Amino acid sequence: MRWPKGSTGLCYGGDYNPEQWPPEVWAEDVALMRRARVNLVTVGVFAWSRLEPRPGRYDFDWLDRVLDLLHGGGVRVALATPTASPPPWFSLRHPDALPVTADGVRLSHGSRDTYCASAPAYRTAAGEITAALAARYADHPALAMWRVHNEYGTTCHCGYVTEAFRCWLRARYGGLDALNDAWTTSFWSQHYSAWEQIRTPVATQYLGNPSQLLDFRRFVSDELLGAYVAQRDLLRAATPDVPVTTNYVLGGWVPVDHARWSTEVDLVAIDHYPSEAGPGAEEQTAFAADLARGWARRRAAGPTDPAGSAGGPAWLLMESAPNLVLTPGRMHGKEPGRLLRHSLAHVARGSRGAMFFQWRASRGGAELFHSALLPHAGPESRAFREAVELGETLARLSEVDDGTVRASVAVAWDATCWWASQASVLPSARFDYADEVAAAHRALWRAGHGCDVVAPGDDLSGYALLVLPALHLVDDGYAEQVRAHLAGGGHLVVTYLSGIVDVYNRVRPGGYPGAFRDLLGIRVEEFHPLDPAERLALSDGGTGRDWSEPVELTGATAVTTYQQGRLAGRPAVTQHRHGEGVAWYVSTRLDDNTYRRLLADVARTAGVLPTCPSAPEGVEAVRRRSADGTGWLFLLNHTDAVQTVPVAGTDLLTGGYADPVTLPAGGCAVLREE
Amino acid sequence: MRWPKGSTGLCYGGDYNPEQWPPEVWAEDVALMRRARVNLVTVGVFAWSRLEPRPGRYDFDWLDRVLDLLHGGGVRVALATPTASPPPWFSLRHPDALPVTADGVRLSHGSRDTYCASAPAYRTAAGEITAALAARYADHPALAMWRVHNEYGTTCHCGYVTEAFRCWLRARYGGLDALNDAWTTSFWSQHYSAWEQIRTPVATQYLGNPSQLLDFRRFVSDELLGAYVAQRDLLRAATPDVPVTTNYVLGGWVPVDHARWSTEVDLVAIDHYPSEAGPGAEEQTAFAADLARGWARRRAAGPTDPAGSAGGPAWLLMESAPNLVLTPGRMHGKEPGRLLRHSLAHVARGSRGAMFFQWRASRGGAELFHSALLPHAGPESRAFREAVELGETLARLSEVDDGTVRASVAVAWDATCWWASQASVLPSARFDYADEVAAAHRALWRAGHGCDVVAPGDDLSGYALLVLPALHLVDDGYAEQVRAHLAGGGHLVVTYLSGIVDVYNRVRPGGYPGAFRDLLGIRVEEFHPLDPAERLALSDGGTGRDWSEPVELTGATAVTTYQQGRLAGRPAVTQHRHGEGVAWYVSTRLDDNTYRRLLADVARTAGVLPTCPSAPEGVEAVRRRSADGTGWLFLLNHTDAVQTVPVAGTDLLTGGYADPVTLPAGGCAVLREE
Amino acid sequence: MRWPKGSTGLCYGGDYNPEQWPPEVWAEDVALMRRARVNLVTVGVFAWSRLEPRPGRYDFDWLDRVLDLLHGGGVRVALATPTASPPPWFSLRHPDALPVTADGVRLSHGSRDTYCASAPAYRTAAGEITAALAARYADHPALAMWRVHNEYGTTCHCGYVTEAFRCWLRARYGGLDALNDAWTTSFWSQHYSAWEQIRTPVATQYLGNPSQLLDFRRFVSDELLGAYVAQRDLLRAATPDVPVTTNYVLGGWVPVDHARWSTEVDLVAIDHYPSEAGPGAEEQTAFAADLARGWARRRAAGPTDPAGSAGGPAWLLMESAPNLVLTPGRMHGKEPGRLLRHSLAHVARGSRGAMFFQWRASRGGAELFHSALLPHAGPESRAFREAVELGETLARLSEVDDGTVRASVAVAWDATCWWASQASVLPSARFDYADEVAAAHRALWRAGHGCDVVAPGDDLSGYALLVLPALHLVDDGYAEQVRAHLAGGGHLVVTYLSGIVDVYNRVRPGGYPGAFRDLLGIRVEEFHPLDPAERLALSDGGTGRDWSEPVELTGATAVTTYQQGRLAGRPAVTQHRHGEGVAWYVSTRLDDNTYRRLLADVARTAGVLPTCPSAPEGVEAVRRRSADGTGWLFLLNHTDAVQTVPVAGTDLLTGGYADPVTLPAGGCAVLREE
Repeated sequence: MRWPKGSTGLCYGGDYNPEQWPPEVWAEDVALMRRARVNLVTVGVFAWSRLEPRPGRYDFDWLDRVLDLLHGGGVRVALATPTASPPPWFSLRHPDALPVTADGVRLSHGSRDTYCASAPAYRTAAGEITAALAARYADHPALAMWRVHNEYGTTCHCGYVTEAFRCWLRARYGGLDALNDAWTTSFWSQHYSAWEQIRTPVATQYLGNPSQLLDFRRFVSDELLGAYVAQRDLLRAATPDVPVTTNYVLGGWVPVDHARWSTEVDLVAIDHYPSEAGPGAEEQTAFAADLARGWARRRAAGPTDPAGSAGGPAWLLMESAPNLVLTPGRMHGKEPGRLLRHSLAHVARGSRGAMFFQWRASRGGAELFHSALLPHAGPESRAFREAVELGETLARLSEVDDGTVRASVAVAWDATCWWASQASVLPSARFDYADEVAAAHRALWRAGHGCDVVAPGDDLSGYALLVLPALHLVDDGYAEQVRAHLAGGGHLVVTYLSGIVDVYNRVRPGGYPGAFRDLLGIRVEEFHPLDPAERLALSDGGTGRDWSEPVELTGATAVTTYQQGRLAGRPAVTQHRHGEGVAWYVSTRLDDNTYRRLLADVARTAGVLPTCPSAPEGVEAVRRRSADGTGWLFLLNHTDAVQTVPVAGTDLLTGGYADPVTLPAGGCAVLREE
Repeated sequence: MRWPKGSTGLCYGGDYNPEQWPPEVWAEDVALMRRARVNLVTVGVFAWSRLEPRPGRYDFDWLDRVLDLLHGGGVRVALATPTASPPPWFSLRHPDALPVTADGVRLSHGSRDTYCASAPAYRTAAGEITAALAARYADHPALAMWRVHNEYGTTCHCGYVTEAFRCWLRARYGGLDALNDAWTTSFWSQHYSAWEQIRTPVATQYLGNPSQLLDFRRFVSDELLGAYVAQRDLLRAATPDVPVTTNYVLGGWVPVDHARWSTEVDLVAIDHYPSEAGPGAEEQTAFAADLARGWARRRAAGPTDPAGSAGGPAWLLMESAPNLVLTPGRMHGKEPGRLLRHSLAHVARGSRGAMFFQWRASRGGAELFHSALLPHAGPESRAFREAVELGETLARLSEVDDGTVRASVAVAWDATCWWASQASVLPSARFDYADEVAAAHRALWRAGHGCDVVAPGDDLSGYALLVLPALHLVDDGYAEQVRAHLAGGGHLVVTYLSGIVDVYNRVRPGGYPGAFRDLLGIRVEEFHPLDPAERLALSDGGTGRDWSEPVELTGATAVTTYQQGRLAGRPAVTQHRHGEGVAWYVSTRLDDNTYRRLLADVARTAGVLPTCPSAPEGVEAVRRRSADGTGWLFLLNHTDAVQTVPVAGTDLLTGGYADPVTLPAGGCAVLREE
Repeated sequence: MRWPKGSTGLCYGGDYNPEQWPPEVWAEDVALMRRARVNLVTVGVFAWSRLEPRPGRYDFDWLDRVLDLLHGGGVRVALATPTASPPPWFSLRHPDALPVTADGVRLSHGSRDTYCASAPAYRTAAGEITAALAARYADHPALAMWRVHNEYGTTCHCGYVTEAFRCWLRARYGGLDALNDAWTTSFWSQHYSAWEQIRTPVATQYLGNPSQLLDFRRFVSDELLGAYVAQRDLLRAATPDVPVTTNYVLGGWVPVDHARWSTEVDLVAIDHYPSEAGPGAEEQTAFAADLARGWARRRAAGPTDPAGSAGGPAWLLMESAPNLVLTPGRMHGKEPGRLLRHSLAHVARGSRGAMFFQWRASRGGAELFHSALLPHAGPESRAFREAVELGETLARLSEVDDGTVRASVAVAWDATCWWASQASVLPSARFDYADEVAAAHRALWRAGHGCDVVAPGDDLSGYALLVLPALHLVDDGYAEQVRAHLAGGGHLVVTYLSGIVDVYNRVRPGGYPGAFRDLLGIRVEEFHPLDPAERLALSDGGTGRDWSEPVELTGATAVTTYQQGRLAGRPAVTQHRHGEGVAWYVSTRLDDNTYRRLLADVARTAGVLPTCPSAPEGVEAVRRRSADGTGWLFLLNHTDAVQTVPVAGTDLLTGGYADPVTLPAGGCAVLREE
């Protein structure tokens, strides 16, 4: 299966919501899409109330016209099922399908996502509108892909969910004895003597049970996956040769384990909205894209790989904001050129294109100031000119669509680990697992190292260096896999709070860091989290913050030591040979420069070089490589100055041969390497 | 109709709650009121549970005695209907008349304002107690005025309200097609196919619909107005010659459009409690009083004007705190003399007196530490001595009661605009429309300019300069009115984020600032809000903060430019001739001094001078003028030093002729000008 | 009655939860307890769901084995009733016994404390499990004490509670007239005409009634006390010679008046968890221990005194954290030696030992990172080595068990006063009564003075100096008691906001500080709270903050005056002779050093010396004294340096005679004095 069906080259476009506009605007839309070389749009995401204005009464005429117009304009369509937002009539007819909060408040329609994925009426209605769409458009020549739903991630505590949670637990644990043991229900008199005593973690008097909280998030992920699979199967049956996917949303509140989902989609698709406006936006972009590629690699390693037929672990940036970074309380317009750099950062890492929310800025509705390819100001605008430029650029990059990134460094990321740490009262409330993984990725990014993001269970054989940042929860199988990787000669960096709890969120006894104690040749008896403003000088000139530990050496040697505080003179970073490999432990939160230096040193020891060792500071270099060995070196100048990179090749952006490459401030190059 | 009926001179007094005290205290109260020259008190505001201790069983005897005592003491009465706080028995009997939050929590009695204004049982009970009061006291000689309810401003989401909201929408939009279009319900699948699908904005999953949110606030305002009118009509029928009003409360949470209400009251009355303890208290006082006069002007321009028979747009400060400024988390006692200055600042701007909450400090209840004219310490206290002094002062100012303020500068204020901006996710969460209007008013106040506050629809013919600060929402009619005013030779200052959305809270397309683009000769494609700490230097030495915009000149010329950041060299403030007028645009939030200088310059260009050009910094000057041309110049010295003002006239406070006027630190003068 | 029954010497141990561990761990537990000289453990606190896995079906076998094992190991048992956490089956069977929040949310099980103490089904079930435990273990040789429940402190707003609240009010006020007067229901129309109109303070529109809020907390305290007494009586009937108690939890949220409860327990027991990690932990420890001794003194003055037979007002530290201080958002491991110092600080002040939560760190459950005597790392750990050391130390201190502390200074503390201040909108939201009392206690502690903490009604005859910090609420009886104490020659220090409200939380009129005006020879008309950053210089070089008052001298003389601000030159601290005594008034919040100096001066005037005048700064000295006159001087070096104290005696910790005493950094000594 080739995807998006009928497409060639990189995808470019975004969410298109013609239902917000009168038909006379549609023709202008298609004309402007052509001008911008848009070749793929997502249609129908939130159109349920327009597609089915009354129960069972469909109105497809307008959508027919839109698809015909798009097809006429050479724009292919990712057709969405509109199930993320049932119409108001549905809420009125099925109040039992509205979601209920942990406090017992049944939410109303009036926003979006007001449904319970476990409610039978919702499942039935979602199936019906999906089947109707499939029947109507299975043979439409514009149809390139199905996009199921939107950003799965809702949680509910109604009776249906409670019942489904019990079923899920029954399947997981078999009997109540196993559950009582796994959840440590002897603590605080929570022993369950019948399944019907178990509830979702609704409002209670005081702290919840960390094992229950973790299992509930696992359950929600599986329950939502079930809702996705039900739609996917309907669509597959109708159009066996059209790929089906759903767009992942990222965030600490999202109860979805995207790694687990990835074997069920035909293409990994993510929405990415950075939350920092400075250089953090570039770092978050790199991390999100590496995450997506990791999920795509997992998918490609699975039983079927329709998308991967074109190459390696391809994926798609399904949504991003063209001219906007949203930080808490504030929108930031992107500087000229940044749209292109962000887009190329995704494409460089394996995205099959760049898609945006949305095509035309809305006049009304809750996101009326959200950025769009075509802003409120219309086509005569910088934003639209940059959109046109982006379209032209992507068209020049068609050949890279076959390639992917191969890395020798891997950083572990596990959604379950995030949830586990959120479910417990940790020694420091400021600890955030995601920050720890981002810090490791950032250190590698700044050191110029490409890296893969791996989830527990992923094949580790290709990696010279594996980094486990704060891998709080680790199950026995993964601990064993890490041990084997190390014993076989891999290099390993483990940071504080790793290996502490088991798969049930229970502490591994005998001393920290539990699962990795002997691998690392150390033992820790207690944690010493720090005050927010506290900084501990280290013997190598770096600093630690947020966390420290009295590390006892049981085989390891100290690499650096603390110079201050209660732990002065004791090891901060250690090194230990285990089998053929070498394992480092980092017992504090290193400042960014020290972390970067440490990982660069370890990588060098492991024989790994940066992607482009000659790239100056601030120039990002990513290499995408085809199966036949062709390499494309993406160079993104994130600085405000002209930069020269002493490398040579044909720059696809200009068509000319460059040696060396000169990048304008904020500019890019994509070299086809000899 | 003359008001308060039977009164002469300025009103002085406040809320009087004799029901909190044993009868033996009442005589002392009246004696002390006489000592302080109190001539008007508001009685019965929260007395429902004492007036009707059981359903239908009235106890008026104590109130008879109180009114007789007051009458005997020469104190007139603003008799309140007690409907803001139904008795506990009412809640028990009519639980369906208790208010419901957006989360569905039905509130209990135990505080105040625990009623739903749309509940039939509440409306009936409110009508009955009102009618009973009217019947009992219609002919009481102390009765000078009816004060309906207290500070209308409650919101409810019960079924009655939901139904009333639908009726209101039906009346507004006629059909669902119009509503769906106005609300952009195509966004997020919110299309309504039946009226009963529409709900008030109760708890939902994510962001609400900004058009729905705005309409709900409009509806609540109208619904509460209906509750007021029902009572007013009962009272008018009983006492056609006694004026009826209600006291407005100000604040961003208040869902009342006071401008709209003002044609329904016989006298505009406001409660004013500043929220800043420093000079901000004086600035807020000036703004509130100018707001009130604007509403009074609108009332006076309406069909009937009983209150205005005594002069121009008179109004009344109905409540304020004698010796207290309440800032978040803290009470501040006013410095000696400040009570008088605050009171005169209101009177100078047209208030027919100065009224306070409350006469005697409560021993118990929720506001037991609220300031009063007669404090816990009793009459032997600075606070009471200042109250006596204030009474004497007001008595000397009787003649000003006929006058009003006339200004050549107007600042626009629109409650709807506030609500609209609160209903949307704006590019900066720190934006507050009220802050923007206050900043403009403050700039004029500091520059010594008197100004009117105008609402959309108010006559603009008398104004040489019109300032529209951040008038986010503007309907087509008002945009046209502004255009005509400018074309006719008016001067206009518009600040950022003005003209953006239409009456339905939908963005006006084609470039910002939407409705005012061609008037201003500029076009803006995108917004660049700033970080809290960010300051941008401007070419005239000023600074901008919070907001900036890449302004494109399409006819205008740059007055100042940005000197820093992405917009360095681009216009910050612009000027444009349109018809006979000149229009300025301010694309950032100017620092106070720069804003003051800009508005002073523009005013000078428009031929407008300060009220008293010779008044030194820190001395506020306001001129109230009678219909026959007499002018009274109020001079308020807000500084800690003696100040001399080179003006001449008879100082009503001393009775002597002054030339020049010497003001003690914190002192005042009121000159009858020749 | 001797307690804990059969014990000798000081108690040492903690909560032991064998139900969290497989039986094979129990033997190791007992062996390690022996190694650490543990002699008392609390068993069964949260074991209800294991003791009664199904309604009426008990499983005591495991507990039999545990008690036998403990007995065999020489460890005595405080057997807990498990009623603080009903099992899940109970919630399912009796949903009406689950607690309801003020918002009307009925909480679910899934944490702990999910019960309503007023629900009949809960009371019945609690009685049954208590009776079953009593029957089973009345004659068990390990049984040393009953510990009822855990940390009483839950609140509920269900119908049972509402009804119980009405009954309580009926008993308190007799008739509605008295209640309406006490609650000032004339304010805001809250007059009650029938008992059924009264509700608990559930969610309402705006501010609640401060008298109602206060009475509700009083009621909750009494209602919970009733629940305790019901269990105690069952246990007493079964085992007349085994003492019964419950462990008090401290905190502003806790609706329990521990002073009132203390006559109902056979031994005062507290849980203490400091909330500051620095020296504040030591200061809080001292205050908590002095509080506990005060309650124990009140108990000992009551009708029966089983515990006190061994000496004076003995009490027991029932729970604390061995190696942990928890501050908001962060856990702190205690520095080496601090566990011992904290423990001795309690023992020095009369605790009959040191008990901890918990024996063995949990693997799972909500408190999995809570510290324990036996940490996750196991016995080979610093934490356990310090636990062993503590056991050895306590064993050496057996003889002090007979002694108690006698102080000449008393600081007043009244839970009702705290609640009253929380129920009102005070002039400063930052005021916290507990902070004020802590500041006074801290000033004395730093000055080296031992002190008692007294509650209203306690005998004051032994005290040369009485300090009333911010005693906001004072009833007439206590005001009279204070007056008599002063008139009889006592010295008195009163700080701002004292004496303001009466027993019903109503302001005492006529000027502040109401009840103490003439005693202090001053009068205050108004309050001048300060901004957070504001500091006012005083004439003695000190500073005031947070609060100031224009103090008028009506007999008193100024000790220090304000040097800045509106009150420059006016008295800050005053002194006044009244009868034979001298009374000081402090009208601001003094900085710590100034407060310490003031109280030291006043104490000297009153003829009171520090406990150990020669102890250097940072060395805490507490003297425990036996009935026969033996004194034990505890010296705790809280500094990081060696300290020498020029005193002599036998150091029980070393067994040697010391003269002078040399304390290592962080070290301790306990001298038997000649």
